[in-house]
Amino acid sequence: MTDHMDFYFDFSSPYGYFASTKIEALAAEFNRKVKWKPILLGPMFKAAGSAPLTEVPLKGDYSRHDFQRTADLFDIPYQQPDPFPIGTVHAARALLYMLQIDERLAVKFAHRTFRAYFVEQKNIGEAGIVLELAEQTGIDTAELAAGMVREDIKALLKAEVDAAMARGVFGSPFIFVDDEPFWGFDRFDYIRKWLRKTAKLSDQPS
Amino acid sequence: MTDHMDFYFDFSSPYGYFASTKIEALAAEFNRKVKWKPILLGPMFKAAGSAPLTEVPLKGDYSRHDFQRTADLFDIPYQQPDPFPIGTVHAARALLYMLQIDERLAVKFAHRTFRAYFVEQKNIGEAGIVLELAEQTGIDTAELAAGMVREDIKALLKAEVDAAMARGVFGSPFIFVDDEPFWGFDRFDYIRKWLRKTAKLSDQPS
Repeated sequence: MTDHMDFYFDFSSPYGYFASTKIEALAAEFNRKVKWKPILLGPMFKAAGSAPLTEVPLKGDYSRHDFQRTADLFDIPYQQPDPFPIGTVHAARALLYMLQIDERLAVKFAHRTFRAYFVEQKNIGEAGIVLELAEQTGIDTAELAAGMVREDIKALLKAEVDAAMARGVFGSPFIFVDDEPFWGFDRFDYIRKWLRKTAKLSDQPS
Repeated sequence: MTDHMDFYFDFSSPYGYFASTKIEALAAEFNRKVKWKPILLGPMFKAAGSAPLTEVPLKGDYSRHDFQRTADLFDIPYQQPDPFPIGTVHAARALLYMLQIDERLAVKFAHRTFRAYFVEQKNIGEAGIVLELAEQTGIDTAELAAGMVREDIKALLKAEVDAAMARGVFGSPFIFVDDEPFWGFDRFDYIRKWLRKTAKLSDQPS
């Protein structure tokens, strides 16, 4: 048993954004913390032979409808972004850098970035926008600008994506509770059921 | 508003099976009936450029794990079938034929068929097994054997699959409540939320 849950997401993923708005409350229900793990879906889709949801015939229309409906049903602010999807390498590197410096600020930045893309129509694919959002979060942007292009940070993101895939991650959001994998915002209830069951089992005399 | 929900499924789909065990109770909560709509995923996967879950890299392992976990979390009897997935054209035609003759018996047969495949390791891909299950359900198997190979029944299944795709169906289970589409067993809570919201809206003076 660990005291956290690993939250893998791509900043360009609507269900990743929805998860980001609820996961801290979910983790808190079970006295756990969230480990934020930015990844890139591009390399994963390549490995799994899949594609962005909205580009798949039939699934595309359904997905766009389901994004907005999910937002409505769960009372989450949402505006379908355009362009979509986008590459989020700058945002991911920025978050990884920030997580090394100040976890609290980093998480604040992650929320700010998701909101900028999915509510405010800001193109977070651009490094300039990422720095702007960091500044609004109270981050030293000169340091961040230097940090997010450092070779070790670039290598770290690559390693994180590889490690995630080795662990079985193929989509966003993807959550590990201990070693139990959960794919999708629609698995939050499974996480609850699973944690309650696990808690019950560990209450029993061994 | 209609008084039913359309339940599209492939007899070889685990999440379709899970849905089949809960959908009548879900529909009853809202005074609706279930219209059983057997389809074949093969032509849909071809159109959407997708493949059976278990054959997709990375997703395959996760899916197999999630089938069993879903069964456990929702207290649904389950044994991963082998062979899997299978062609279910005979079972689908048999159900379509039965639905024309006696809806109550047809639904009983549908439940019996799902259970045979996902609990009892029976290969429901074989026409002989389908007839055996029909007999156990109290269906006249001589009539059914003749009915399920009739040209109009074959054409009906093809038309049903085409109509489903035209409506946007690309997976199993796929449920329409009025014209609202829901894909997946993990959308049952969405259906509840959506129906409550719709009921509330229609209560308001117009």
